[in-house]
Amino acid sequence: MSDERYERGRALLDRINPENAARLEENLRDVAPDMAGYVFAFAYGDIYSRPGLDVRSRELATVAALTALGNAPLQLKSHISGALNAGWSREEIVEAIMQMAVYAGFPAALNGLYAAKDVFGEIDEKRQR
Amino acid sequence: MSDERYERGRALLDRINPENAARLEENLRDVAPDMAGYVFAFAYGDIYSRPGLDVRSRELATVAALTALGNAPLQLKSHISGALNAGWSREEIVEAIMQMAVYAGFPAALNGLYAAKDVFGEIDEKRQR
Amino acid sequence: MSDERYERGRALLDRINPENAARLEENLRDVAPDMAGYVFAFAYGDIYSRPGLDVRSRELATVAALTALGNAPLQLKSHISGALNAGWSREEIVEAIMQMAVYAGFPAALNGLYAAKDVFGEIDEKRQR
Amino acid sequence: MSDERYERGRALLDRINPENAARLEENLRDVAPDMAGYVFAFAYGDIYSRPGLDVRSRELATVAALTALGNAPLQLKSHISGALNAGWSREEIVEAIMQMAVYAGFPAALNGLYAAKDVFGEIDEKRQR
Amino acid sequence: MSDERYERGRALLDRINPENAARLEENLRDVAPDMAGYVFAFAYGDIYSRPGLDVRSRELATVAALTALGNAPLQLKSHISGALNAGWSREEIVEAIMQMAVYAGFPAALNGLYAAKDVFGEIDEKRQR
Amino acid sequence: MSDERYERGRALLDRINPENAARLEENLRDVAPDMAGYVFAFAYGDIYSRPGLDVRSRELATVAALTALGNAPLQLKSHISGALNAGWSREEIVEAIMQMAVYAGFPAALNGLYAAKDVFGEIDEKRQR
Repeated sequence: MSDERYERGRALLDRINPENAARLEENLRDVAPDMAGYVFAFAYGDIYSRPGLDVRSRELATVAALTALGNAPLQLKSHISGALNAGWSREEIVEAIMQMAVYAGFPAALNGLYAAKDVFGEIDEKRQR
Repeated sequence: MSDERYERGRALLDRINPENAARLEENLRDVAPDMAGYVFAFAYGDIYSRPGLDVRSRELATVAALTALGNAPLQLKSHISGALNAGWSREEIVEAIMQMAVYAGFPAALNGLYAAKDVFGEIDEKRQR
Repeated sequence: MSDERYERGRALLDRINPENAARLEENLRDVAPDMAGYVFAFAYGDIYSRPGLDVRSRELATVAALTALGNAPLQLKSHISGALNAGWSREEIVEAIMQMAVYAGFPAALNGLYAAKDVFGEIDEKRQR
Repeated sequence: MSDERYERGRALLDRINPENAARLEENLRDVAPDMAGYVFAFAYGDIYSRPGLDVRSRELATVAALTALGNAPLQLKSHISGALNAGWSREEIVEAIMQMAVYAGFPAALNGLYAAKDVFGEIDEKRQR
Repeated sequence: MSDERYERGRALLDRINPENAARLEENLRDVAPDMAGYVFAFAYGDIYSRPGLDVRSRELATVAALTALGNAPLQLKSHISGALNAGWSREEIVEAIMQMAVYAGFPAALNGLYAAKDVFGEIDEKRQR
Repeated sequence: MSDERYERGRALLDRINPENAARLEENLRDVAPDMAGYVFAFAYGDIYSRPGLDVRSRELATVAALTALGNAPLQLKSHISGALNAGWSREEIVEAIMQMAVYAGFPAALNGLYAAKDVFGEIDEKRQR
């Protein structure tokens, strides 16, 4: 699967979430090694690379959707991290998550906020080391 | 409930989705007249009015979330309309909806695209009259 | 499947939602005739008939859950009707549905209210005839 | 946000779930301090305080809905605790959760029962100390 | 996007659901013309074409999942049709849908059965003409 | 509840997932002892025992549905184990889970794959002892 779509997606993910690409490959190596390739080639190489919407806006859309769905805390945390790297401030991300209380209920929004708190805390901890 | 929060929210909704406020009040009059007030005061007066994230970004987050949840086509259509009024192009909105194929699956994204197609068609029809 | 569980469930459903039992059998006759029996025997004969919680409370729990899930408008309408027959007032049912805005978001609650409006309207129409 | 709605909601939550209010404020302090205020003012000050449905019934509706949604175990546990404080017996709460097998499937109901088991166990442990 | 993946996926979809490919292109032409290509290339060209699981088993998995999710009736109907074309009998499809009562609740299963009834009815009607 | 349905379901579950029956009874003993009986009698005694679809196909349908729903990791792991015992290979199960990326999004599929990885790892560990 090392075609143009794969390379483009992998490069994009390496830019906005450098740790995520490696971790995904590592996690999937034993169980479904091709799956990481689909994430790179389809999610990032096809969709995120489309010119009609900038990557920064795409990351906000994803944080909102994963907060609302409420069943993928690991992926939400990856995308909160990605949204920071794409140029959103912590405050803006927190606002988008809080807003999901209106569309998916308070529990989904609260759990999204706890995910954001974890991500921010991990970043602060790394910086202090 | 005609307090400051209500007035602020109602004014905001009248600006980004002028038809929606009136329709909501009309739809709820017989069954739950206070509910429209909560939408105005809480959703728009409290949340959308918070300064930490602009209304344009908030509308994109909502379109993404409602597409992903996939169980509120009426409200998704209202917010596609709101996203247009908040300054997003049709292409940008379509991109955000397509992107939900990655996070909520193709059926949710396809149904979101059909909702967008309906909204765009209704706008074009009004213009031609 | 015409055992004790079936008979007990069928009798209970006939008491709280007389139209529902017949309509369910009619709808399923061609496609999955045994399915109506499972609804009667398991849902009503086993679960709703358990002595630990009264049927009136059970109907409120079901209206709340179906509003929150937001993907079964037909069944929600049946249970709004069932909740009325089990002794809840229209106002109480509307309150429980509105409350779901807190736990599942405003779109789910609004769509639940529109379902209630439909059910109340159908009842009023029948009465006037 | 220390207005009448906030005070009324806070007082209500302190009555039915005294630990929850403090824990919520603590959890949100760093990440989204205003969010606790929305829970107090909107969820409890506006919605739970409405006279059309008693708080005891509201807690049952919430336990049912959170069990059915299945994506907010922390909040479900808080409301199982709240339902006990609002006057429901353990048996009644267990019955409402079991019933969700009919509307949201056995896995959601089983996970709701495990949440109830945790809450009951924590209460028993506190009593024994 | 007329690469090998696209061609392989399109050919596969034309084989198991000949009407679906054309209808999808038609529905998306105005709003998101590239989206049909992603369905062909990714869903069918990448995933369904993988040798590790036969297409017949894949269609059953999809019918089960879409019944359980309960928010995509159009796509569920397409895949009930696809499951028939892939070699499942009506009875087997109905059994898989009924089974979802256990995992996603009776309302989701009932709505899945009504979708199957519609599909079977449309097929019978075409045959009689 | 030790009737024919119960015995048939219990025997079936003991055959395809011997550990699951005992663990379920153990987990539910204190909180809802009758619930295990409903799982045995309804889920396995009624539904899985129906002749219209073989148990092997039923397990695949369940793995697909629980992956797509994404809110019941414990039950998904039980059914991945059940699918292996019913005759599916690891590769086939992994393929069905990956396929859910198309219908429920990549996060749901990834979390399903991590569940499969856990189950396979536990089996390998037992064998090595």
